[in-house]
Amino acid sequence: MQCGDPVEQVSLRAGMTVGELVDAMGRAGAYNGGALARAASVYETMLRDEHAVKFLGLAGAMVPAGMGGIVADLVERGYVDVLVSTGANLTHDVIEALGCRHYHGSAACSDLELRAEEINRIYDVFLPNDAFIRFEEFMQEVFSGLPTGAPLKICELLAVIGRALPSGILASAAEREVPVYCPALADSMIGLQYWLFSQTRRVTVDAFLDLQPLLDTCFEAKRAGALLVGGGVPKNFILQSMLMTPRGFDYAIQLTGDRPDLGGLSGATLDEARSWGKITGSATAVTVYGDATITLPLLVAAVLERMAA
Amino acid sequence: MQCGDPVEQVSLRAGMTVGELVDAMGRAGAYNGGALARAASVYETMLRDEHAVKFLGLAGAMVPAGMGGIVADLVERGYVDVLVSTGANLTHDVIEALGCRHYHGSAACSDLELRAEEINRIYDVFLPNDAFIRFEEFMQEVFSGLPTGAPLKICELLAVIGRALPSGILASAAEREVPVYCPALADSMIGLQYWLFSQTRRVTVDAFLDLQPLLDTCFEAKRAGALLVGGGVPKNFILQSMLMTPRGFDYAIQLTGDRPDLGGLSGATLDEARSWGKITGSATAVTVYGDATITLPLLVAAVLERMAA
Amino acid sequence: MQCGDPVEQVSLRAGMTVGELVDAMGRAGAYNGGALARAASVYETMLRDEHAVKFLGLAGAMVPAGMGGIVADLVERGYVDVLVSTGANLTHDVIEALGCRHYHGSAACSDLELRAEEINRIYDVFLPNDAFIRFEEFMQEVFSGLPTGAPLKICELLAVIGRALPSGILASAAEREVPVYCPALADSMIGLQYWLFSQTRRVTVDAFLDLQPLLDTCFEAKRAGALLVGGGVPKNFILQSMLMTPRGFDYAIQLTGDRPDLGGLSGATLDEARSWGKITGSATAVTVYGDATITLPLLVAAVLERMAA
Amino acid sequence: MQCGDPVEQVSLRAGMTVGELVDAMGRAGAYNGGALARAASVYETMLRDEHAVKFLGLAGAMVPAGMGGIVADLVERGYVDVLVSTGANLTHDVIEALGCRHYHGSAACSDLELRAEEINRIYDVFLPNDAFIRFEEFMQEVFSGLPTGAPLKICELLAVIGRALPSGILASAAEREVPVYCPALADSMIGLQYWLFSQTRRVTVDAFLDLQPLLDTCFEAKRAGALLVGGGVPKNFILQSMLMTPRGFDYAIQLTGDRPDLGGLSGATLDEARSWGKITGSATAVTVYGDATITLPLLVAAVLERMAA
Repeated sequence: MQCGDPVEQVSLRAGMTVGELVDAMGRAGAYNGGALARAASVYETMLRDEHAVKFLGLAGAMVPAGMGGIVADLVERGYVDVLVSTGANLTHDVIEALGCRHYHGSAACSDLELRAEEINRIYDVFLPNDAFIRFEEFMQEVFSGLPTGAPLKICELLAVIGRALPSGILASAAEREVPVYCPALADSMIGLQYWLFSQTRRVTVDAFLDLQPLLDTCFEAKRAGALLVGGGVPKNFILQSMLMTPRGFDYAIQLTGDRPDLGGLSGATLDEARSWGKITGSATAVTVYGDATITLPLLVAAVLERMAA
Repeated sequence: MQCGDPVEQVSLRAGMTVGELVDAMGRAGAYNGGALARAASVYETMLRDEHAVKFLGLAGAMVPAGMGGIVADLVERGYVDVLVSTGANLTHDVIEALGCRHYHGSAACSDLELRAEEINRIYDVFLPNDAFIRFEEFMQEVFSGLPTGAPLKICELLAVIGRALPSGILASAAEREVPVYCPALADSMIGLQYWLFSQTRRVTVDAFLDLQPLLDTCFEAKRAGALLVGGGVPKNFILQSMLMTPRGFDYAIQLTGDRPDLGGLSGATLDEARSWGKITGSATAVTVYGDATITLPLLVAAVLERMAA
Repeated sequence: MQCGDPVEQVSLRAGMTVGELVDAMGRAGAYNGGALARAASVYETMLRDEHAVKFLGLAGAMVPAGMGGIVADLVERGYVDVLVSTGANLTHDVIEALGCRHYHGSAACSDLELRAEEINRIYDVFLPNDAFIRFEEFMQEVFSGLPTGAPLKICELLAVIGRALPSGILASAAEREVPVYCPALADSMIGLQYWLFSQTRRVTVDAFLDLQPLLDTCFEAKRAGALLVGGGVPKNFILQSMLMTPRGFDYAIQLTGDRPDLGGLSGATLDEARSWGKITGSATAVTVYGDATITLPLLVAAVLERMAA
Repeated sequence: MQCGDPVEQVSLRAGMTVGELVDAMGRAGAYNGGALARAASVYETMLRDEHAVKFLGLAGAMVPAGMGGIVADLVERGYVDVLVSTGANLTHDVIEALGCRHYHGSAACSDLELRAEEINRIYDVFLPNDAFIRFEEFMQEVFSGLPTGAPLKICELLAVIGRALPSGILASAAEREVPVYCPALADSMIGLQYWLFSQTRRVTVDAFLDLQPLLDTCFEAKRAGALLVGGGVPKNFILQSMLMTPRGFDYAIQLTGDRPDLGGLSGATLDEARSWGKITGSATAVTVYGDATITLPLLVAAVLERMAA
């Protein structure tokens, strides 16, 4: 056991940059503030490693909370090679890209009144139901244009959607040809729209075909890194992708509000992932516990500052 | 605002039954102990309502923690009409059904040593890697026997697996013809085994086809209730299934370790679900915050006692 | 690294006792359910060890939630030698002992309406303000009778209060001559009542004198054990009491809803306490994460059953 | 129910200031990121209100994590009129002021080895035991110089300590004559040092006397605001101080890692405080859930930037 650097008491000043703040948190070095500073170092190293394939996992209702802009920007900057998302984030990305908006609301409200006024609530964000009418029109049009021959991959379907949109995560990914995986796409409004579409027509989307290009990427990667925003399917799908290869992730950053002691994967430590070989024994890996609406902007702004330096 | 019953100070005695304990927690009526007692009442009413279709959502690493036995038993008793699970729980259910075991371990250990000894860790549960060799043989055999014609539903694939097993959740569900949905099946070892199989052969499993029988069930249901163990895909898939119908769930019990303020669906309150119409305005709905390895056995044992009374 | 017993899938039956349920959770052995079963074993061993001084720490609003009855009962059974509490729990214990009641309420309510109706809220428990009128009369009467000579210890003041009450924690402790420590007594309604009293009269209560009898107990103890319900001052005060002695706690059970990664003592692991020497290197110590309105009744009912066997 | 502003997707750029980041989080407006931006607005308004008495509550092991520097700086800037702390934070403040240091460590370590090497652990911070030798010398010297006549207030004792130190929270507070309250001082190493001192000599420190100057402040305040870092005794002591007055807090910001559903005060919402009248019905009050080693520096840096603008 050895003591590291001394804890430096944090000194703040008006007008300091986010990078300077995170540096100060790093010199303090304790608890999740210290972890966030270490996460910035791991993420910077990962982004600077041109031989590392960069994965981004996106779970939690991040797009309704305005975090989609950060993700789309990371894609556009070339900092994402593989994106894995929940279906909900992609649904809300489509909604925003179509010009519909989410609104500031309140968690202390009457959900019965909201229901009567056709406003859907996501904690303290409100989404008027109208958005889903526009969403339905768009999705049905996209589905109508799909090829009816060989089974489609889910990532191919998502690329088609992305190409039909002017902005957002799916649009940026389509433009940069970044594959977007979403194994549980049926578990989203996009899935329900497909069901509606399938009442009259049929396009086969294969549940497993995406594994081929994903595992090809893993087999070909010299090194690999992952930024995991939340847990859920995206975290598991990214980490398990290395299980079939002789390698594991070399870099991993996890921003999560879950806890390890409940046993679920979403809160599991990245050390646990080493026992499975999902992460290499020597990987640099950091978990930051907290709300990603705070930790994600803080982490990314600090790393952008370092990358620009 | 009105005061309800007075809080009764809890009085315990040696040898009391679980039902008696939960009754005492209900008379105290506070915090999650009170919520658990109310959840028992909702679950009892839901099970006694013969016109209610009963959904069970299963997320979190519940089978490695021994909770699979409770789920299989609920299926066998006829208390589950529709089961929605993560792929991981089904993977571990297959492993247990094949006679491989999970073991008591420790969360305070060296994951590098575990890796060297080929033991996988799930918080404080250990799973020797051998299990996956047996799992692979079994899965490859099952895949080999699948029909190669029209695209399969995921629930059909899971029923085939269940019929090939002697015990466990999938076996019980197959025997009682309870559909098991798992929209993110690709996101599990079963998915990876499919990828291995597909290197030489091909069976098409459709990503969206399960929505048809699920939504048929929802449209036909007079009433519906859900016991949600954890959040994730199972919770969302169950709740969203009502969105296309004019109705919502009439009963809902949620056992979760997540919190609402992070915005994610896993921790979202059931009131939030009312704004979306996933749950009816008049539904009886209770959330119990805590580890399901405590709250699930407590809830179910108390309700079994009431059902037997 | 070694695997322990296999995880046994939990099997429940109608009418099983709480002890049987906790045994089943122990055979499953995972996460907090497994921890609770281990905690029952540690607590049983501690209670059966006649050479162990038994400490109970009580934090969190446990009396308003009906958990005070369990604590008073443990005191009456002789299972508590030293009690350390927050001032709030003692305030609410006095209120209940005076015949005022807490009531079942709701967390989803208008606090402005509650304020207008003079009802105080503790999460989903309501306490009408009337109770504090009765409380004030009682406290002023008790203060009036205090000796005005040498400075009083806080535990002496609490014993005086206890002897003036017919039932509850303080009454049981006074009757059995169990010392009740409450270092932050000023931080409670009892403190505010003292301030009122002191506007006209003066009794000196010393802030530090309680340390003498507490540390005497620690120095004389052959062995020592602690059941820590919540964290806060009670946890720290109990654990730090061993720091001046050459020994540490031999048994420790912690029921907490906090988490270690925030760095605070309330969520700190008991292993961390070993580095300080508060707990011996060989102590049996278990932390159960969760709401004590669930874990405390479950733990105590199971242990009472074992003690009666 | 009404929708507020639209959620603006967050756009980050290299070199942006902390204030700009928090503004962006405010335009997104969701979950805890949105809450933090609202908290910055409340805190700014509170600091600009020259008629508001400003309270700061400090709980959790904040000084070992480097957050003491922020608190001392706020005191020096005149942004704190009343400070309420746990004894542990003051103990570690003394240690740092004496030139002893806390060190970067790790939470994944052997506490038995740490014990053998005489290193105390606070999550991932290490504190060599030597520090307590220096601490003991200092404290015994301070106690020796205390007046032996009338009972001392705890805040007077803390001012004596502060005046004997060159830097840190207690020193800054002493210099600016900001009272520091610590009702549970006995529950800290300072308390244990007093016990040691009292083996040979005696100074009476009154447990309740601090309430007089604190309540005087409350009665005289035109308006009042509180920044609550963590919960525990500091939060309760600050909030309850208004209970005896006809008024309540007008501004309140709470940074906490606890949750409301466990019923304890540390995680209780500020709305709950309105039912008690601790906070006025019209008070602007915000809770930010998360680790204060992230939320405190972020909040304060953003507000310093606004105050300088």
